[in-house]
Amino acid sequence: MASSAGIGYEILARVAMVLPERVTLIEVGPRDGFQSEQKLIPTELKVELIEGLADAGLTEIQVCSFVHPARVPQLADAEEVVRRVVRRPGVTYSGLALNLRGVERAAAAGLHAVDLSISTSYTHSLKNANRSLDEARADVRLMIRAARSKGLRTRVGLQCVFGCAYEGDIPLDRVVEMSREIVAEGAAALSLADSTGMANPRQIADVLERVLPVAGAVPVILHLHDTRGLGLSNLLAGLQAGVTRFDTGFGGLGGCPFIPGASGNIATEDTVNMLEAMGVATGVALEPVIRAARRMEEFLGRSLPGKIHALAA
Amino acid sequence: MASSAGIGYEILARVAMVLPERVTLIEVGPRDGFQSEQKLIPTELKVELIEGLADAGLTEIQVCSFVHPARVPQLADAEEVVRRVVRRPGVTYSGLALNLRGVERAAAAGLHAVDLSISTSYTHSLKNANRSLDEARADVRLMIRAARSKGLRTRVGLQCVFGCAYEGDIPLDRVVEMSREIVAEGAAALSLADSTGMANPRQIADVLERVLPVAGAVPVILHLHDTRGLGLSNLLAGLQAGVTRFDTGFGGLGGCPFIPGASGNIATEDTVNMLEAMGVATGVALEPVIRAARRMEEFLGRSLPGKIHALAA
Repeated sequence: MASSAGIGYEILARVAMVLPERVTLIEVGPRDGFQSEQKLIPTELKVELIEGLADAGLTEIQVCSFVHPARVPQLADAEEVVRRVVRRPGVTYSGLALNLRGVERAAAAGLHAVDLSISTSYTHSLKNANRSLDEARADVRLMIRAARSKGLRTRVGLQCVFGCAYEGDIPLDRVVEMSREIVAEGAAALSLADSTGMANPRQIADVLERVLPVAGAVPVILHLHDTRGLGLSNLLAGLQAGVTRFDTGFGGLGGCPFIPGASGNIATEDTVNMLEAMGVATGVALEPVIRAARRMEEFLGRSLPGKIHALAA
Repeated sequence: MASSAGIGYEILARVAMVLPERVTLIEVGPRDGFQSEQKLIPTELKVELIEGLADAGLTEIQVCSFVHPARVPQLADAEEVVRRVVRRPGVTYSGLALNLRGVERAAAAGLHAVDLSISTSYTHSLKNANRSLDEARADVRLMIRAARSKGLRTRVGLQCVFGCAYEGDIPLDRVVEMSREIVAEGAAALSLADSTGMANPRQIADVLERVLPVAGAVPVILHLHDTRGLGLSNLLAGLQAGVTRFDTGFGGLGGCPFIPGASGNIATEDTVNMLEAMGVATGVALEPVIRAARRMEEFLGRSLPGKIHALAA
């Protein structure tokens, strides 16, 4: 019989796991989730779901993206969604903006928060945003300034931090440098995105070890996908490093609709279940999130990858 | 904007994650996975899959269960499977035994290792094994002695350690006491099973903190299910506590065949992917495990919950 590989338990064993007492989950299903869907979701249903998620106790919800309507027809009703959602006091509603026009639209729509995004990969930036990385870095600084001048709380997301489908590993020095720029420009929050689910827990710890000191008082958010089943393990690594803000999507929306079980964002309901089981408060009630996930399954006519809403059925 | 809940990163932030350099994965799909399936799997296919998994580099495989054939018809060909598998040098093949008759059958079949099982829940023991917990504890001691007297390497699994569907939480003192008994009786390994996927990472750390010192030099194995999507997070917590042996099932077999996406054992391929990505050696090649999972999907005519084999498709 194999021994324990020569590693004595006494060396590795920890005292009880140290975790934050409370975390904030940021619901991104209405943007990151919806944009992956082919079937056009009526504005009315979007509004109903967003209001249900706020009622569940989610205090930050990304409700739309101000991209060009022709580029993402699913999100073409951004202004209409913002106009129709009955806003719950204490809840922050945000929209994604990818250029100055998007920032202007967010402000004009009456939002108080805008989410910006920039890739850390040369190739991904060119292919996805049609910008060289240098251009994109200059753009995002201008966008932060524009957003701040309009009084919008501004979050900036770094994409592909944990790996790029085109380039593989992204140099951590670049991630750190870009984080520093964004913080210096006055962003209210910095998010690190694992858009394609390539991160692993050790890498999460390694990246945070470098980025958290640079972020200082600016909160760092982890945006995780469950593509390889590591979403919640990565969240755990983030929690252990002291991160208290995570993007989640109800139902685990956002996977490819054509691959059975293909996962998108870590599922809000599964994350709430995990955190509350560990005694980490989320302030989110499970039942209304489960109802939202089931409502979406009914509309889409297929099961979503989240586990808890299916178990409770 | 919410602050980071008043918890300074400087308090929680860790240096790079400390993990073992190498772990052993124990393949339990051919027993725990197969037994959940309604469709009778031909002995020939079982043998083909077991041999493929050994070729992949899995060095411990639970190949069958010596239960009464009428109780689990799917595993009625236990002796035939053992007889027909061409054994690879360096690989340990084991069978599950639930009573003395099972131990005798394992020895007679020519196995060198037997896996025993006992519930830590009063109600589960009565309902599942038709034994009071006291009777079951006496039985397992007799079974360990019988197995040892036949020269079988003996592993004992504690069921429901992290929660019981009937009783909820199981007192940790009882788990510790039963662990001590089993170790004292000379078991070669102790496994802690989360049969219904009720565990969470903090609980894994808490339980291991108590059980590892009692186990001493006897290796502790975690047997995890992904029912609520926490399987790999629980594995990470185990790794961080110094556990280096985990049960996994290829494809994530073992969920309820009637619930889409319902998960069984943590998937061997997803576990290998996670560990290798973190630089933790498994000795297992991904491709042959993926092939086994796809072969099984083809036979069952439905997709299995593991993520990696579907992505690679």
